[in-house]
Amino acid sequence: MDIDDEILTEFYDNRYAVQGMLIYRKAALIVVREMQKILEENLEKAGHEPVLFPVLIPEDILKKESEHIKGFETEVFWVTEAGKKVLDKKLALRPTSETPVYTMFSLWIRSHKDLPMKVHQSCAVYRYETKQTRPLIRGREFLWNEGHSAFKNLDDAEKNVEEIRKIYGDLLNDLCIPYRIHRRPEWDKFPGASYTLAYDTLIEGKILQIATIHNLSEKFSEAFNIKYEDEEGNHKFVRLTCYGPSFGRLLASILNIHKDENGLKFPAKFAPTQIVLVPIFAKGNKEDVLKYCRGIKEKLVQFRVVLDESDKTPGEKFYYWEKRGAMLRIEAGPRDIENNEVVVVRRDTRKKEKIKKDELTPEKISEIFKDIDKNLREMAVKKFNEAIFTAGGIDEVKNLAGKGIITVGLCEKEECRNEIENYVSVLGVEEKEEKCVVCGKERKVAYAGKTY
Amino acid sequence: MDIDDEILTEFYDNRYAVQGMLIYRKAALIVVREMQKILEENLEKAGHEPVLFPVLIPEDILKKESEHIKGFETEVFWVTEAGKKVLDKKLALRPTSETPVYTMFSLWIRSHKDLPMKVHQSCAVYRYETKQTRPLIRGREFLWNEGHSAFKNLDDAEKNVEEIRKIYGDLLNDLCIPYRIHRRPEWDKFPGASYTLAYDTLIEGKILQIATIHNLSEKFSEAFNIKYEDEEGNHKFVRLTCYGPSFGRLLASILNIHKDENGLKFPAKFAPTQIVLVPIFAKGNKEDVLKYCRGIKEKLVQFRVVLDESDKTPGEKFYYWEKRGAMLRIEAGPRDIENNEVVVVRRDTRKKEKIKKDELTPEKISEIFKDIDKNLREMAVKKFNEAIFTAGGIDEVKNLAGKGIITVGLCEKEECRNEIENYVSVLGVEEKEEKCVVCGKERKVAYAGKTY
Repeated sequence: MDIDDEILTEFYDNRYAVQGMLIYRKAALIVVREMQKILEENLEKAGHEPVLFPVLIPEDILKKESEHIKGFETEVFWVTEAGKKVLDKKLALRPTSETPVYTMFSLWIRSHKDLPMKVHQSCAVYRYETKQTRPLIRGREFLWNEGHSAFKNLDDAEKNVEEIRKIYGDLLNDLCIPYRIHRRPEWDKFPGASYTLAYDTLIEGKILQIATIHNLSEKFSEAFNIKYEDEEGNHKFVRLTCYGPSFGRLLASILNIHKDENGLKFPAKFAPTQIVLVPIFAKGNKEDVLKYCRGIKEKLVQFRVVLDESDKTPGEKFYYWEKRGAMLRIEAGPRDIENNEVVVVRRDTRKKEKIKKDELTPEKISEIFKDIDKNLREMAVKKFNEAIFTAGGIDEVKNLAGKGIITVGLCEKEECRNEIENYVSVLGVEEKEEKCVVCGKERKVAYAGKTY
Repeated sequence: MDIDDEILTEFYDNRYAVQGMLIYRKAALIVVREMQKILEENLEKAGHEPVLFPVLIPEDILKKESEHIKGFETEVFWVTEAGKKVLDKKLALRPTSETPVYTMFSLWIRSHKDLPMKVHQSCAVYRYETKQTRPLIRGREFLWNEGHSAFKNLDDAEKNVEEIRKIYGDLLNDLCIPYRIHRRPEWDKFPGASYTLAYDTLIEGKILQIATIHNLSEKFSEAFNIKYEDEEGNHKFVRLTCYGPSFGRLLASILNIHKDENGLKFPAKFAPTQIVLVPIFAKGNKEDVLKYCRGIKEKLVQFRVVLDESDKTPGEKFYYWEKRGAMLRIEAGPRDIENNEVVVVRRDTRKKEKIKKDELTPEKISEIFKDIDKNLREMAVKKFNEAIFTAGGIDEVKNLAGKGIITVGLCEKEECRNEIENYVSVLGVEEKEEKCVVCGKERKVAYAGKTY
């Protein structure tokens, strides 16, 4: 990522002795806590119950559904010893929690009255990535929220997919992250899913998958024998859905999508430091100015405010906090005190405005923050839309690879798919009136791009 | 625990396929979130930075300090395989995070200006317990918060111990959990500590250690080479402290300490359901009563309120919610509506009170909750104090074992210690004018009891 190392170390340290495992630091945890809070509140309002499952999964449970384990078997960490003993049964570090959750669903679900059953947990998951790891984007331990739900029938499961789309959409709107939802092609869906919807955003022209929603086939409910008794006394298999956004990738997205030549920017709610107060000293008035600034800080306790009392010059402070994405700078010097004013500078537009001290209320700040978010969102959407292309031939696909999302005609033949996947990954395929760019014959349209 | 199984399942499920690992459910997570929030806020106000370290610790790092690994080596889970590969280096699931934190402290700390360095994380830790596991009390995966700090000298480290005592004291006060702090005897301190302070509470006469604070010797800073340059340019080893409360044991404590013959009780802030609204229907007025109750619920959104609209009788609802520790019951029927009143019943005293609907403000509720907490705290302290005994001889120790905390004379000889530890564990030893109950000679006093 094209961000100062000095600033990235406030988010994470990548020097830990296990490759692909980060130490999260304060700035990252502030952002992650905020997104987690919003997401959990909305999931719980929609009837999801919080749960927390153990990190270890016995081998036989992880392997119960055959497609699923095939999808994960090359990337599971295995606990085989405990104390000085070799375990009878290997235990996996959860790569995802469908299998442990379903062992309990088969106990918890008895009757149609137990349905829908919707649970969620925020936790870390573990995958022994063989591809090159990248901080926040591809790690061997990553933070996410996973939702798991059971329904009476496919119709209810589909309604849940809509509900989750609404909840994830609201979060991404708050984060000002533009995205497209692609229905992944058959060969790239979740192991055991009937279909997978993926949320794709763009970082520097490459596709980053930030969340997925899976509507599962009945294979899981059969493998785990999750049945309910309906109103007529018949025993039926439930329909299952599962879904999750990656907090690490969402953090990588806001760091990269919103930054500009002066450093980081954040949707105001997520900025590690939301407001910085910079006192402007003249000779002999230091205490008056500090007192004035402290008074302002006290009125704004609901925000993350820093009063920079360091020995740096005002210019150095401006530069320091701009780089870190403090979204509002409040300056106050002797003349401002005389006029009972402050100077307010927005990080996004860098516009200066004088505001009467009395008018600098939390409500006024919230209003400015709302406008900052609107601006960030518009800028991000504009940039995103500029990176959506249509390719008329395979040469154009080659040229556009790594520059964004490419719309391209593609038929169903494996040889055509393979040809295109030499350059880009297919994100989704739709039935539309387009000719295959490779063979020129059958008519489907694909969305494709270089992925992280 | 002497609590209905039906109710305990709302807190956790103990039927998961890995022994000693619980599935936490909604009611438990509400309590844990509340305590975590209070603790983290207070730690961060005192200058602790949140961090999150990886769950895996390479074997060589875990083994760097020899006393420490000796204390844990029989209870570490080891990851030895990943994908289809045997790892070159075994990786431990963190039993506690001193060793990974100190590898980073040695990078993060350079100068006296970097000190104090105080970090904390809320996470799960893993110990392959060979003793019998017990839900929330002794598990192989448990939830806690761990703090790790580095200081210039012993004096600053001691001040930090005082600061943490204040923070843990405030949390335990909020939880209405009575406790004593014992300085653990030499043979029972944290592996690598210069001394260990332990917080002991009582559940049904047995001692439960709920938190510890360790002031470490210089062995760790030497083993991990954590040095700083002081004002004069000398390079010195830092002094380290570490500390943590167990969220699972705190939850076990409030479930068990506050319960009575009618079921659970909670300090109001921690009750999974704080208020239950019970509509009292007469013929034909159902909608009016519900509307009235919904109006009340809307005014109390800041609390966890349930309006019980089920088909049960009022008596059944009272019983149901009493057992679950809803700390305030609000009843409203046709006559109450006429008088613009409600009936308010406290869970702790079961006292009924009529209150005008307009006076039932969030402030009024908070006032009642404060009084409930005061009452719970007083009852708990009284019970705790009644279980503090003094034993004059070894027979009395035998009789009192399992009934509380026993004060008893005990000298330093190993044979006397062994004799007493046939019946009870020694929690702490102090220099006081008491004769040893075993040999009758040397003069020290010990606090002892049967432990979980």
